[in-house]
Amino acid sequence: MQVKVAGRTGFCFGVKRAINIAERTIRENRCRGAIYSLGPIIHNPQVVEALSKKGLCVIKDISRVNHGTVIICSHGAPKDLIEKIKDKGKGIKLVDATCPFVKYAQDIVSRLKKQGYGVIIVGDKEHPEVKALLSIAEKPLILSSSLKKKGKGERVRIGVISQTTQNKENYLKEVGDILQYDFSEVRIFNTICSDTSLRQALTRRLLDECDVMVVIGGKNSANTRRLWQICRDCGVDSYHIETGAELKKEYFENKKCVGVVSGASTPEAMVKKVVKSIKKMS
Amino acid sequence: MQVKVAGRTGFCFGVKRAINIAERTIRENRCRGAIYSLGPIIHNPQVVEALSKKGLCVIKDISRVNHGTVIICSHGAPKDLIEKIKDKGKGIKLVDATCPFVKYAQDIVSRLKKQGYGVIIVGDKEHPEVKALLSIAEKPLILSSSLKKKGKGERVRIGVISQTTQNKENYLKEVGDILQYDFSEVRIFNTICSDTSLRQALTRRLLDECDVMVVIGGKNSANTRRLWQICRDCGVDSYHIETGAELKKEYFENKKCVGVVSGASTPEAMVKKVVKSIKKMS
Repeated sequence: MQVKVAGRTGFCFGVKRAINIAERTIRENRCRGAIYSLGPIIHNPQVVEALSKKGLCVIKDISRVNHGTVIICSHGAPKDLIEKIKDKGKGIKLVDATCPFVKYAQDIVSRLKKQGYGVIIVGDKEHPEVKALLSIAEKPLILSSSLKKKGKGERVRIGVISQTTQNKENYLKEVGDILQYDFSEVRIFNTICSDTSLRQALTRRLLDECDVMVVIGGKNSANTRRLWQICRDCGVDSYHIETGAELKKEYFENKKCVGVVSGASTPEAMVKKVVKSIKKMS
Repeated sequence: MQVKVAGRTGFCFGVKRAINIAERTIRENRCRGAIYSLGPIIHNPQVVEALSKKGLCVIKDISRVNHGTVIICSHGAPKDLIEKIKDKGKGIKLVDATCPFVKYAQDIVSRLKKQGYGVIIVGDKEHPEVKALLSIAEKPLILSSSLKKKGKGERVRIGVISQTTQNKENYLKEVGDILQYDFSEVRIFNTICSDTSLRQALTRRLLDECDVMVVIGGKNSANTRRLWQICRDCGVDSYHIETGAELKKEYFENKKCVGVVSGASTPEAMVKKVVKSIKKMS
């Protein structure tokens, strides 16, 4: 059985940057007390576990935190939560590890709001990135899941952005629905990050050549889940795993070629380990 | 046979305004010499003929005109042509009868150009309205008829506007193609005028009830031709006429209900005459 690995694996720019920021913060701020991250710094449980062993404590609630260092994770954090932390005073040092591509999307929402556009965010409303974007929009016009036509005569100016890890096809489908409104102007921003687009394109390419796909990455990772979704939509047998321990020999029975792809928060070392395990099974 | 007339007939706001401007200009400027219009003031040969009898002379070329009054028609005129007329000095008085909805589209193109957007105009490139818009865009990105995908990596900011008399469905189809580009932002403006949208909607309504359609208006009228196109696309027998003289008895043989619609530059009186003729034939 042949094993084909996607041309792009390992951490994306934003994930690498967030991990570097976390490691440096741990190193340099130990004397300032505990070091927290607001939610997992990236969506890969194994990496988060390793950082936790180095001293990074994942928290959701900041109500009891009055001292130490708090890192905003790569997906960003809701505006009001950041304000609350700042209000706690000098006892807390705030470190921002938000991915610059996410920050770019946040800046667009902020600008659209100032210019009087109704803001639509296409994405998973439970995802921390989208929650942060929603907090900036304050009154988002509509969410992709609750899209409704406006009444006649309401000609609106709409700004549309996407979660950075969206699939462009899905995004354009939602945009198509939005364009059915009686709008006066719709501004569509391509906020899908280039790493996401590239991994999706490479996954599609492998789908043409392989009869089974292994998608490696956090089960909570939106971009990894989308790669898996693309595979399933193509009708090819596909397995989303975090580590090689989840692989089963039967996945590869009677298969000729396995494609291996990974999310933006999956370490390169993990991809290599999984490829080794697959080769052993074939 | 029943005859159903669309709920909206007669001149639209922009046409009515252009005719009023032309008539007032003829009245008030006779002493200043000849009165010209740059192309037909509206796209209805019968109305243009009537205005010509009152003293309005339609011209295409201004090279020999050095004196008198020149009216810019309801569809607007190319920027360089207007500049040329202004350069001729005080001998020529310039009167602008451009429809305010067309002017709104021109202002958008002008603003987009200043802000560094590539401009796409969806419409018939031979139509005077589109020619005027193109002259403002100077370097339009692409025309609907020559839409091509940009190379990878070229992430562009695009502004899209439509000819004011477009069909929204056609427009959104073109927008769908544009969204396939590797864009960073696409701004879509709804520059289709409300009168056009209303007449199209009312035409669709009549198509549900009628088995033959009569579309009245200038053969050179873009908005009338689009109404006719909507009828033909529905597979209902449809006839585009300028006057009742073009009607034939056989059009209505074995028909139960005839729908009558008219363009934005068709006089109400003409609609009434045609309805009378149809009733006589049935």
